[in-house]
Amino acid sequence: MSKSNLAPDKILQLGLAFWGSKTLLSAVELGLFSFLAKGPKDAKALAKKFDLHPRSALDFLDALVALGQLQRKGGKYSNTPESNLFLDRAKPSYVGGILEMANARLYPFWGSLTEALHSGKPQNEAKTGGNFFAKLYADPKILKMFLKSMTGLSMGAAVAIANKFPWKNYKTFVDIGTAQGGLAVQVALAHPHLTGGGYDLPVVAPICKEYFKSFKLQNRLQFYPGSFLTDPLPKADVLVMGHILHDWNMEEKKMLIAKAYDALPKGGALVVFEAIIDDNRSQNAFGLLMSLNMLIETPGGFDYTGADCRTWMADAGFKETRVEPLVGPESMVIGVK
Amino acid sequence: MSKSNLAPDKILQLGLAFWGSKTLLSAVELGLFSFLAKGPKDAKALAKKFDLHPRSALDFLDALVALGQLQRKGGKYSNTPESNLFLDRAKPSYVGGILEMANARLYPFWGSLTEALHSGKPQNEAKTGGNFFAKLYADPKILKMFLKSMTGLSMGAAVAIANKFPWKNYKTFVDIGTAQGGLAVQVALAHPHLTGGGYDLPVVAPICKEYFKSFKLQNRLQFYPGSFLTDPLPKADVLVMGHILHDWNMEEKKMLIAKAYDALPKGGALVVFEAIIDDNRSQNAFGLLMSLNMLIETPGGFDYTGADCRTWMADAGFKETRVEPLVGPESMVIGVK
Repeated sequence: MSKSNLAPDKILQLGLAFWGSKTLLSAVELGLFSFLAKGPKDAKALAKKFDLHPRSALDFLDALVALGQLQRKGGKYSNTPESNLFLDRAKPSYVGGILEMANARLYPFWGSLTEALHSGKPQNEAKTGGNFFAKLYADPKILKMFLKSMTGLSMGAAVAIANKFPWKNYKTFVDIGTAQGGLAVQVALAHPHLTGGGYDLPVVAPICKEYFKSFKLQNRLQFYPGSFLTDPLPKADVLVMGHILHDWNMEEKKMLIAKAYDALPKGGALVVFEAIIDDNRSQNAFGLLMSLNMLIETPGGFDYTGADCRTWMADAGFKETRVEPLVGPESMVIGVK
Repeated sequence: MSKSNLAPDKILQLGLAFWGSKTLLSAVELGLFSFLAKGPKDAKALAKKFDLHPRSALDFLDALVALGQLQRKGGKYSNTPESNLFLDRAKPSYVGGILEMANARLYPFWGSLTEALHSGKPQNEAKTGGNFFAKLYADPKILKMFLKSMTGLSMGAAVAIANKFPWKNYKTFVDIGTAQGGLAVQVALAHPHLTGGGYDLPVVAPICKEYFKSFKLQNRLQFYPGSFLTDPLPKADVLVMGHILHDWNMEEKKMLIAKAYDALPKGGALVVFEAIIDDNRSQNAFGLLMSLNMLIETPGGFDYTGADCRTWMADAGFKETRVEPLVGPESMVIGVK
């Protein structure tokens, strides 16, 4: 080897990273962490409970230990503090919904990434005439689970926004595309002077209202029914759009920003948050991969840099714009009218 | 959130790690790194060369930058030192063969991991009556590419074994299941006093002999044809088995170790190397996942700890046994007769 200081380890680790990924996804699919949340169990009990073949049980469980998702002491497996909090279906902090979805849908769809790179077309149910969201909205039980998983997924960013945005300067807010209402609840809990709520399709209403009530916030937070593609947005001092804009194409993104501008008072603010890509498009791998996920999942959606979003906001008439980091790969872009 | 110091980031990163994995695999499939090895290119040229849709080209290329597999300067993309050395098909150091195989075969087969966990049965071509290796051995071009990728994959461990094992105490060696002969060449280059070679199926002979010749080692290294399942092993002071034992079930593993014992002189050594699992089965995630890969790929194969292998060696009659780490997840287990 002429360049003996170079090693292929990182390349091979990345190329085979789907092994560890799929191992966690199968564990979530089986409900392993939810079961272990009730107490430690040995391999025999777990193999019986989850019908694990003798050939696979120990490798599967020990791989999850080595991947930092389980602990093992004296032959008994238990959750880590993180997997216990975030992968137990019985807890409101459960983020496994998105991983169940990734296991059942995204993993196989990403298998056609090369085709998507060539065609620019989605590789999900749309490829065979299906529609994931139509199916989702048709089944209240599946819908609730999906919306709940969105709450878990956005929780870190929601808490950060509740802390970082200057809420004291405003009285009302509405979270656009609120799902279960996770962000609205975190903001309302942190700032008792605020009223507002969440806007989403009418089918979401009972699930969101129930969530507001579970925090005794039903007097300060209401559900605003509507479709942001066809209806005007509700009026408030602050409008929030989290993990919304990236689903849509350029024209639709600009239309949504323009609707927010129309609904805000002078001095009001639009807060956009998701895995905003760094302006140099060279650091936030998760944001760039999320954009490829939009390629797999939508006809025209894509993720974007803070600079992109600030330009669109400025074009829509917003006077001041800025980007602030939140947690992990997530940032918020703020536009003030 | 009651436990606000806990975050779901690592869980979500692991659960969605297949995004970055598949992005690299698609880039290897397309031959992106081999093309960029000829010189930097802008996105337009790359999109034209690889038929990348305008919607996907920049996200794909920039994701590879953020994942550390490409560099970008002044709008031109180039390989990193690592991707240039290990992912250019024109170089002997190419490790992409294993990733091409992972892209075409393992990624979709791992999609059925949950089924494998329940059934204990392979999820590869065998599931539908196919046989990957039969097909591989039937096409000299595909076989050469596969054997070459094995050389790249084992290079780090081969160099470490050439340096770490006390070769000065021995005169002859044979690498069992030698493939292209990568380990034999590294050992022979480092230790001019040694003679020996590589043992593999007769179909491998021309590819291995050509490789020995390319290093002008044809006078010191020969190819030994045979099948280790049915034939005795060639006699030598040292026998090496790299990434061999994990393919086979317990009985077959023990049979192979016994055959090595029979072929060695008193004081001779068997050197077994692969992603040996740590004795506590809680650290070497790659080794444990490799064992799950054996579940996906073989009827009875599995990876094992250093302690396991030392026990099997001792049972076969080896007097001294020890484990030594090599590079990354790889270790060697040495048994002295």
